[in-house]
Amino acid sequence: MTSNRIYTAALVIIGDEILSGRTQDKNISQIALWLNVQGIRLREVRVVPDVEEAIVEAVNTLRARNDYLFTTGGIGPTHDDITVDAIAKALGVPVVLHPIAKEILERYYETRGGVTEQRLRMARVPEGADLIPNKMSGAPGIKTGNIFIMAGVPHITAGMLDALTGTLEGGAPLLSHQIGCWVAESEIAKLLGDTEKAHEGCQIGSYPFFREGRVGANFVVRSTDAHQLAACVEALRSGLAGFGYETIDGGI
Amino acid sequence: MTSNRIYTAALVIIGDEILSGRTQDKNISQIALWLNVQGIRLREVRVVPDVEEAIVEAVNTLRARNDYLFTTGGIGPTHDDITVDAIAKALGVPVVLHPIAKEILERYYETRGGVTEQRLRMARVPEGADLIPNKMSGAPGIKTGNIFIMAGVPHITAGMLDALTGTLEGGAPLLSHQIGCWVAESEIAKLLGDTEKAHEGCQIGSYPFFREGRVGANFVVRSTDAHQLAACVEALRSGLAGFGYETIDGGI
Repeated sequence: MTSNRIYTAALVIIGDEILSGRTQDKNISQIALWLNVQGIRLREVRVVPDVEEAIVEAVNTLRARNDYLFTTGGIGPTHDDITVDAIAKALGVPVVLHPIAKEILERYYETRGGVTEQRLRMARVPEGADLIPNKMSGAPGIKTGNIFIMAGVPHITAGMLDALTGTLEGGAPLLSHQIGCWVAESEIAKLLGDTEKAHEGCQIGSYPFFREGRVGANFVVRSTDAHQLAACVEALRSGLAGFGYETIDGGI
Repeated sequence: MTSNRIYTAALVIIGDEILSGRTQDKNISQIALWLNVQGIRLREVRVVPDVEEAIVEAVNTLRARNDYLFTTGGIGPTHDDITVDAIAKALGVPVVLHPIAKEILERYYETRGGVTEQRLRMARVPEGADLIPNKMSGAPGIKTGNIFIMAGVPHITAGMLDALTGTLEGGAPLLSHQIGCWVAESEIAKLLGDTEKAHEGCQIGSYPFFREGRVGANFVVRSTDAHQLAACVEALRSGLAGFGYETIDGGI
């Protein structure tokens, strides 16, 4: 299903390990790229500590003003995994044991020392929730209302995204095209702004860099309309050529 | 200066390039690690688009409830660089040209084609602001009240952090010690929780992984007190030994 409506998502990353700097986040970009393909824009991200009230605040604010809310982290078996409890609290529902999640864990741990009370923690869900399959490790993700509760470990998150592919209603996918140029962005800043204004529905991002002893920039044009996108890229290319700059398709 | 008070900071990352998935964020972890050394905890992070009202909301919420607020991104010369205007709006002050920033840019661009109107955009600051030196490229960062406005390009951000080192009042630095173990965290989840409870002021983070065909986990103990930290690490180590697990100092 596609429409002109823009579908938005927010992401809450739950984890002291990100805020302490111990772990380099990889979920923002992989979830953002996946959402683009689903026709959904990642509109805002919050990283919050493993503190119930911080999770509740972020979840309740963001689920209300976006079509979808994703969370990553805090769904393991240990004492610092409080995501399910916090989201149940945000929703005002009790935490219950999900019978299918329990079966999945019993099967998974059959050859791995058996299910324990701690391991069964991973079958706990906010009442009324469904499961998101996890083909990487035992414990499933959780879907409740417009909230998708996923693992924090990036390759497990990736597996859960894979399971959700095509199941969410979105709009037209956001298309993008990048061109690179060995130019200081400050030299052609006016051209960028004017070109964007002249092409409705297009955004131009400018990403400068310093490489091989020279300054350059990549310009990313984004639009949901392929024709407008192509026209805007072409206008930018010929504008840069007018200043004597060659562009490199795909970026530098 | 150190005290028992916990100093907190928040970070607002301003940039469509992060939300679109184009750019992998590197600023959260580098700023978090730098803050730890200053005795300041990164308490929350928000990634917002290049949209004025989104920046204003995040800045005003987070500057009020943290000792410090850092922002990255959106301070270049192009049309999508709206951070200064948005923060001035959040503070209710006009944007003015900073005379020293203007001089810095004039000097920097003297051999680079001269200052243009677009380049002078990078000398604009919220009224009353000071500058943060930038030894990497021309345009300085900006300090206003408890807000530190920095570049988005990670190595330029790093240079600005370097310039700020030792200038912010903080508390006792957060210390951490990591030990690794080839164990499924679900097997010793109770031990982790009990050990944390028994050591006041210590947090234990559990970070599972799957490597070399085996499951394992790294445990990070954090505290501002070196003695409590050492005692907690030792208790965890001997607890794991009691279950027959060797630990690897520094992590796996």
